[in-house]
Amino acid sequence: MSALISPSRRLRRTPFSEGVEAAGAKAYTVYNRMLLPTVFRSVEEDYHHLKSAVQIWDVSVERQVELRGPDAGRLMQMLTPRDLRGMLPGQCYYVPIVDETGGMLNDPVAVKLAEDRWWISIADSDLLLWVKGVAWGLRLDVLVDEPDVSPLAVQGPKAEALMTRVFGDSVTDLRFFRFGWFEFEGRSHVVARSGYSKQGGFEIYVEGSDAGMPMWNALMEAGRDLDVHAGCPNLIERIEGGLLSYGNDMDKNNTPHECGLGRFCNTETAIGCVGRDALLRVSREGPVRQIRPIEIHGDAVPSCDRPWPIMDDGEQVGQVTSAAWSPDFDVNVGIGMVRMTHWKAGTDLDVVTPAGVQVATVREVFWN
Amino acid sequence: MSALISPSRRLRRTPFSEGVEAAGAKAYTVYNRMLLPTVFRSVEEDYHHLKSAVQIWDVSVERQVELRGPDAGRLMQMLTPRDLRGMLPGQCYYVPIVDETGGMLNDPVAVKLAEDRWWISIADSDLLLWVKGVAWGLRLDVLVDEPDVSPLAVQGPKAEALMTRVFGDSVTDLRFFRFGWFEFEGRSHVVARSGYSKQGGFEIYVEGSDAGMPMWNALMEAGRDLDVHAGCPNLIERIEGGLLSYGNDMDKNNTPHECGLGRFCNTETAIGCVGRDALLRVSREGPVRQIRPIEIHGDAVPSCDRPWPIMDDGEQVGQVTSAAWSPDFDVNVGIGMVRMTHWKAGTDLDVVTPAGVQVATVREVFWN
Repeated sequence: MSALISPSRRLRRTPFSEGVEAAGAKAYTVYNRMLLPTVFRSVEEDYHHLKSAVQIWDVSVERQVELRGPDAGRLMQMLTPRDLRGMLPGQCYYVPIVDETGGMLNDPVAVKLAEDRWWISIADSDLLLWVKGVAWGLRLDVLVDEPDVSPLAVQGPKAEALMTRVFGDSVTDLRFFRFGWFEFEGRSHVVARSGYSKQGGFEIYVEGSDAGMPMWNALMEAGRDLDVHAGCPNLIERIEGGLLSYGNDMDKNNTPHECGLGRFCNTETAIGCVGRDALLRVSREGPVRQIRPIEIHGDAVPSCDRPWPIMDDGEQVGQVTSAAWSPDFDVNVGIGMVRMTHWKAGTDLDVVTPAGVQVATVREVFWN
Repeated sequence: MSALISPSRRLRRTPFSEGVEAAGAKAYTVYNRMLLPTVFRSVEEDYHHLKSAVQIWDVSVERQVELRGPDAGRLMQMLTPRDLRGMLPGQCYYVPIVDETGGMLNDPVAVKLAEDRWWISIADSDLLLWVKGVAWGLRLDVLVDEPDVSPLAVQGPKAEALMTRVFGDSVTDLRFFRFGWFEFEGRSHVVARSGYSKQGGFEIYVEGSDAGMPMWNALMEAGRDLDVHAGCPNLIERIEGGLLSYGNDMDKNNTPHECGLGRFCNTETAIGCVGRDALLRVSREGPVRQIRPIEIHGDAVPSCDRPWPIMDDGEQVGQVTSAAWSPDFDVNVGIGMVRMTHWKAGTDLDVVTPAGVQVATVREVFWN
């Protein structure tokens, strides 16, 4: 498929779209009904640059669901099987969100601003509607809304160098998945050490659309000698690093345990969370299929735009849902869901791509 | 913006994608995280053809939310301010769905299959999550899920001629917004007289993805001498006809009354519906802004990919959210939300497009 994307208001622009366009974005995806660039120079060129320099990413599509009010903390704990009792303001937690059957509805990052104020920085599903529905059904005393907050990520080995120039040296004190408030042009913004790459970096939760382009421009300006460039989550790099993508590698048919997120489920102690009954069983027995790194041998694979069956001896034993040629590892890197009978590292399998059957091997760990 | 769309599993293909691709779809949008073609030959050529012949549309993106069980009817009434007490199995109702503040969450079509089984054929938001959240919060005795049902629309003046060839003469007995069960290759499918155009036609709720391409091919085959062609909702035609688009012309900031959907709100009698308190007030006082047909004079406007301010004497009094050049009416047709002070038919206003300021006039009724 090589087709154009039709613009409309429904595919929302972001506070940084002007910068993204000026930087020459060549392709987009739609994520949370908003535009997310996918390619600037080329996926491979963007990949090498991300691993060696620093990029500014418009990740406004990570919309926030804000919970505010006396029942905010109670609701937040109800939404996830991860035990949040030890979580402090200033921390970010990766939290699986499941429905009553234990099926994944989203895999967001919870940002605890205060005891009675949280942001849920979401993956690609209208989690706002789930949270509002639950809160309304239970008549909780909480406001649930999408604030005017648009994350801007600074990713790559030179991210810290760039960030200190704009936000000062104290930004280096931030530990992974911690955040602080940092000032820019007279306004305070949440800055976290986080991001959807394995190259290190930060996410700035830009509050107020009007602050978008000034922030973008300031970072571009300050990083000129660091070879800063506009970028975006990179398909190859995120597969190498084993970063899952909701909607691609998992959906509401999967439990967190199938996604390898069992360590984020404290189902015994997360009393009152949605899906607890279903997950208690899974957490004891373990899943019967699970996410695995899949190395696909042979030629570069085409775009993975639909699940590719994983076969053994004529029987389907799983599916590949993300794949790309990796220049650094000189092989096709992939993410798949594989049945227990075949998920052991070293198992050889057949992957059926639209281009034909390619031999593949289950790996122990992701590449990076 | 002239950019490519990046394929991934997350942007779901449909049971008819193979046919859509073979027919030469040139551009897509993403709707309910699924691909929706937007152009085949050209938007104008598709438009003339839709108005003169018959088209097959892949509208799988109209996903179904199925409610099934003892509380299905109670939940359905809770979801909408439209009074559903007189609705019979075999009927389709256009139902505004609002949150507790009366803000539009979706504007779907409810399909009553039986007293205890409903489909909600949704516009572009994950209504499934809202319905599941409400049902879970209230501990209702109902199953809520997305079934494997993908609508295929047959639209245009020759739609009836084509449909009778595949489903028999009895399909002509269907009245507007009524449905029946019709057999195709040994399986029964819901067929309704409905569709997102003003040219007349039907929607086939194709059950089972495996039935997709056989159905597509049978319709294409049967309609060869009727000049049948693959098509899709047409931007120009739908604006001329005043068909609103959720996410474009309205969103959760708007009440049904602002969208001109007050006639579908029986807030007095729809006891127990979400948002009743908020809407009772609006229904008595009326909205302070409302959807209006906007005729934009001058040159053909660019793509409306963001709200265009409507100005009068330096003050913003509304916004245009959909617009296109109409070959048949020889003017730019538009849909806008206009403040009460300026919504009277005949009022002249300025519309600020990225191409400049163009004079516009509020119309009494849509073009078609």
